[in-house]
Amino acid sequence: MTTISTLQPLALRDAVIADGFWAPRRETVRAHTIPQQEHQLRTGGQFEALRLAWRPGDPGEPHIFWESDIGKWIEAASYTLATHPDPDLEASVDEAIDLLRGAQQPDGYLNTYFTVVKPGERFTDLRDAHELYCLGHLIEGAVAHFDATGSTSFLDIVRRYADLVVREFGPGGSCEGGYDGHQEIELALVKLSRATGDARYVELAKRMIDARGTQPYYFEAELERRGTPGYFSREFRNREQQAERFREYNQSHLPVREQSEIVGHSVRAMYMLIAMADLAVDTDDPGLLSACERLWESMVGGKMYVTGGLGSDPSIEGFSAPFDLPNYTGYGETCAAIGLVMWAQRMANITRDGRYADVLERALYNGVLAGASSDGVCYFYGNPLASAGDVHRHEWFGVACCPPNLARLLASLQTYAYAQGDDELAVHLYIGGSVTTTAGGGATVDVATALPADGRVALTFRDVQADAAWTLALRVPAWSATTSVRVNGEEIALAEVVRDGYARLTREWAEGDVVELSFDDAPFRVRADPRVAADAGRVALQRGPLVHCLEGVDLDGVPAHSIVLPREAALVVEEGPVAGVHAIAADARRVEPLADGQLYSTEDPRLQPQWIRAIPYFAWANRGQSTMAVWLPER
Amino acid sequence: MTTISTLQPLALRDAVIADGFWAPRRETVRAHTIPQQEHQLRTGGQFEALRLAWRPGDPGEPHIFWESDIGKWIEAASYTLATHPDPDLEASVDEAIDLLRGAQQPDGYLNTYFTVVKPGERFTDLRDAHELYCLGHLIEGAVAHFDATGSTSFLDIVRRYADLVVREFGPGGSCEGGYDGHQEIELALVKLSRATGDARYVELAKRMIDARGTQPYYFEAELERRGTPGYFSREFRNREQQAERFREYNQSHLPVREQSEIVGHSVRAMYMLIAMADLAVDTDDPGLLSACERLWESMVGGKMYVTGGLGSDPSIEGFSAPFDLPNYTGYGETCAAIGLVMWAQRMANITRDGRYADVLERALYNGVLAGASSDGVCYFYGNPLASAGDVHRHEWFGVACCPPNLARLLASLQTYAYAQGDDELAVHLYIGGSVTTTAGGGATVDVATALPADGRVALTFRDVQADAAWTLALRVPAWSATTSVRVNGEEIALAEVVRDGYARLTREWAEGDVVELSFDDAPFRVRADPRVAADAGRVALQRGPLVHCLEGVDLDGVPAHSIVLPREAALVVEEGPVAGVHAIAADARRVEPLADGQLYSTEDPRLQPQWIRAIPYFAWANRGQSTMAVWLPER
Repeated sequence: MTTISTLQPLALRDAVIADGFWAPRRETVRAHTIPQQEHQLRTGGQFEALRLAWRPGDPGEPHIFWESDIGKWIEAASYTLATHPDPDLEASVDEAIDLLRGAQQPDGYLNTYFTVVKPGERFTDLRDAHELYCLGHLIEGAVAHFDATGSTSFLDIVRRYADLVVREFGPGGSCEGGYDGHQEIELALVKLSRATGDARYVELAKRMIDARGTQPYYFEAELERRGTPGYFSREFRNREQQAERFREYNQSHLPVREQSEIVGHSVRAMYMLIAMADLAVDTDDPGLLSACERLWESMVGGKMYVTGGLGSDPSIEGFSAPFDLPNYTGYGETCAAIGLVMWAQRMANITRDGRYADVLERALYNGVLAGASSDGVCYFYGNPLASAGDVHRHEWFGVACCPPNLARLLASLQTYAYAQGDDELAVHLYIGGSVTTTAGGGATVDVATALPADGRVALTFRDVQADAAWTLALRVPAWSATTSVRVNGEEIALAEVVRDGYARLTREWAEGDVVELSFDDAPFRVRADPRVAADAGRVALQRGPLVHCLEGVDLDGVPAHSIVLPREAALVVEEGPVAGVHAIAADARRVEPLADGQLYSTEDPRLQPQWIRAIPYFAWANRGQSTMAVWLPER
Repeated sequence: MTTISTLQPLALRDAVIADGFWAPRRETVRAHTIPQQEHQLRTGGQFEALRLAWRPGDPGEPHIFWESDIGKWIEAASYTLATHPDPDLEASVDEAIDLLRGAQQPDGYLNTYFTVVKPGERFTDLRDAHELYCLGHLIEGAVAHFDATGSTSFLDIVRRYADLVVREFGPGGSCEGGYDGHQEIELALVKLSRATGDARYVELAKRMIDARGTQPYYFEAELERRGTPGYFSREFRNREQQAERFREYNQSHLPVREQSEIVGHSVRAMYMLIAMADLAVDTDDPGLLSACERLWESMVGGKMYVTGGLGSDPSIEGFSAPFDLPNYTGYGETCAAIGLVMWAQRMANITRDGRYADVLERALYNGVLAGASSDGVCYFYGNPLASAGDVHRHEWFGVACCPPNLARLLASLQTYAYAQGDDELAVHLYIGGSVTTTAGGGATVDVATALPADGRVALTFRDVQADAAWTLALRVPAWSATTSVRVNGEEIALAEVVRDGYARLTREWAEGDVVELSFDDAPFRVRADPRVAADAGRVALQRGPLVHCLEGVDLDGVPAHSIVLPREAALVVEEGPVAGVHAIAADARRVEPLADGQLYSTEDPRLQPQWIRAIPYFAWANRGQSTMAVWLPER
């Protein structure tokens, strides 16, 4: 008997985004980001490499990550194709799939690097070579392509490869007990299992998750089998210390069910936790869910930036000690925030607890969205919360995980806004548009809102099929200090209907019913726990889900970090310096520089009034390089 | 005709330190630090390596830096022997000198690494191999040994090696135009020239300083001659970018006279600038002095910690952008602060401008002194201005430059306190004891003070030889808000006698004359220029020359970084938690942690009264690992 149930995301076509905030951004992804990325893949060698024509000594050696770039790009493209037919894009996707088919080996294997650069070495460097990680992204792309188009052209390819992996990593296989150094294959196998109904894939995912961190450590045995001592960095005292760090780095230091502190590479952690949440449901495994909940607490209690960014140690692209959240040197990889959105979605749907969607929203509107420029063609890999003016977005990266990751998330954003069960439709995110649910027999709900610019939301029912009571579960965001709900004009006593952060309205919904929500959209101050040294004595400014920041370009040459915010300063919403988004304005003070050549002073600081207009964090770095600060000293 | 004159430091025996602050610390160096370092050198392989018995494959491969460790240790030991005979120590020094003599090659060459590990490769990797750097420290040790003992046993050895270097690096030599990747030989050659009267050494130093940074770049030509592309780090886009960074790293990016921003490895910069100041005097070269002054302004105007620490980028142990002075991740290498003291001494003596001695004092009492534990046998390599509780001092390092550097500076501290000219005695530092000057014909001045615990100083004349007027130049420290001077009980109008930071009292000094100084020893707040993002909204506490810090061990488990200091809080001097040093106490507030698991809050911070006792920065980390903060948020 199943003890763990979950709400389900809606199909791509059953939720429509048609608002003033996300719709234009998603159109930018469709019209600019996806084509720009296709251009990068065609000119960067990724497509070409699949012809397997590279020979030792040739320029343009294939990179171990390249199949993952293609997989994520096909995934993003497929999501847009589901709702926005585009014959040219479809032809490009088909071309990529044909190339992948051509590169597939007779036994199903499909990895350019280990076919032409390191033949004969497949599956011998699981810790670092990202082979199964690449397969995972191909699978995710294939499942998305199948969902969007109904075609199995890509799915058939990845199934043949996945079947090989099932043999090699299953009982008696050459890699029995193995798992990848970069988690991803596990969550992908769950998706493949769900798409095909083939239980072998979910079983393999479970085996890999359960094997992780058990002794003898797979990666160390693998190193011995390779007969090489491997890379050794002098930053470590000895090889054992290095091995320990590597274990934590890829979360193989302990069996996953015994892990209680979130550590290591942030994206690896997120992808692992997504798989653990999925497997908790699909294999009915409360132990995996408990581990997820424990590691969630560890993350949100001390290791998450206010933007939902993850990872404060650039040297491992990952987590450091609790409360160590430096703003200038923080990492906050775009991919990690994306992974967090995906994990939070699973946790929200399983637990029906609003705090997961609160974090989903925080990461989405801040840590994720900052990852791309406003024109959708330049990207941040890391997302610091303060800058001395020395960083900017790039068109592409040697390791280009973030750009297509961002594209696939935004292209499928509608599936994150809602979830449904037999008699429940949950609204996690308020985004103008509509949603067609099967809950309670079926209905369509039109959602009208100008969020995040305005706190009001109206949901109107139409095409209602049922005549029994069912539940509309409306998330009450943590950022809304006061919230009111009216049904057909009648105020609802929130205390009576809110449970775990959702207002649960159960009734026989009828044609034309209107639910009106009013959230508090006034700007407010946020403070960090005093154990976060980097934010001591500082406040961040937030409005709705949007964390704001000061950018030097708006301060007439004054660096953002020389602004202090009086405690009594009122925060007002003002037309901002960035078109289309509001600013939080306030009567702040700038500290005047000392005399030239003087670095320290015993004088009181010289303060001058300075009207500041803090822009949403996601919008920063779109107007040239500039100083930036999220956390402002308070005075 | 000489246009650049300088005051001269006094001989080791002509200035006596006999106070309550430095004398016990110097005794610790003599009785504990120097013996502990001898033990390290004997057990760590440095002494043993000089037998040249190491063969490839043996354990304990000699390290490229080892001669420098020995040179600095002999230098420190010699300074103590000058005033404190110790037959055992003298025997150890003689043993080391004998070992060095035995390791010297027939042509004078003396470097273990290039004799037994890399024979045949001498002077082929000047950029990184520290060969001349090691010779420099041997020379400094030999000059100190000669000064202290009158024996030329060590001096004769280094002269033979220096003569080889004069041939090889002079006109027509195999390394003509070459210079070392780590400056040090230049300042040592000046010392050798002064000690021996042989002008060839100072001429070579000048050639090396002048060749540095000229094109074609010596280190790149050297790399080509070696026929290897050399190390390439992926952190750089390409080799040219890496080469540029390396040039800045060792200050060979521009001819030294054209450098205007202080960049690169901090210790390299300091040692270069010491040589430039010395050469400005010894070769009468105003261009070198101007360059020193320009680079000084660049340093004190944006690149120096309030502790006198230098270097904010650990990856290069060096300077980063102006105003980039992070507290947790800062570097502040002990050796760099020591180098700064040495450079500031030259600048003070040449310019007679008190701001140089102000910085000398700042670095000495804070950035340098923090480098050793109170028991004198554990060391910091880097000296951050804040800690999350994860750092502590070590007994030794693989690269052990700092420990003997600290020992040699403190063992010769008396030579930094005073300087003299024909008719002037300058007092740079007020340290209880006495000084016997030749100025004005000769006199001894007894100095009575309890500084830094008490702001009063009395200077009493005895053994006065002369009957003409001469000048006692008394530094008025920048930290003293109000200062009074009385001569034989009579108040002097300071405005009339202070020039460039020194009260210049010119008279026919007589037996029994007493000069009384009263400095303001009240604690005060220091603020950084607002462009220093790390210190925005924060204050540091200082009393006299001592910068203070909060240490978690004194806060009942409250982390130092969760203390805020009200702007109106009075600062009082109190008996401190560390024996023998006072604390700056205040009625501060601690910010209470948020509820468990909560990292961010929209509530006002919960403040509780917290009596704080800030200890002198140099005294931190002597009572176990603990959080620490120099800069406190102000409220």
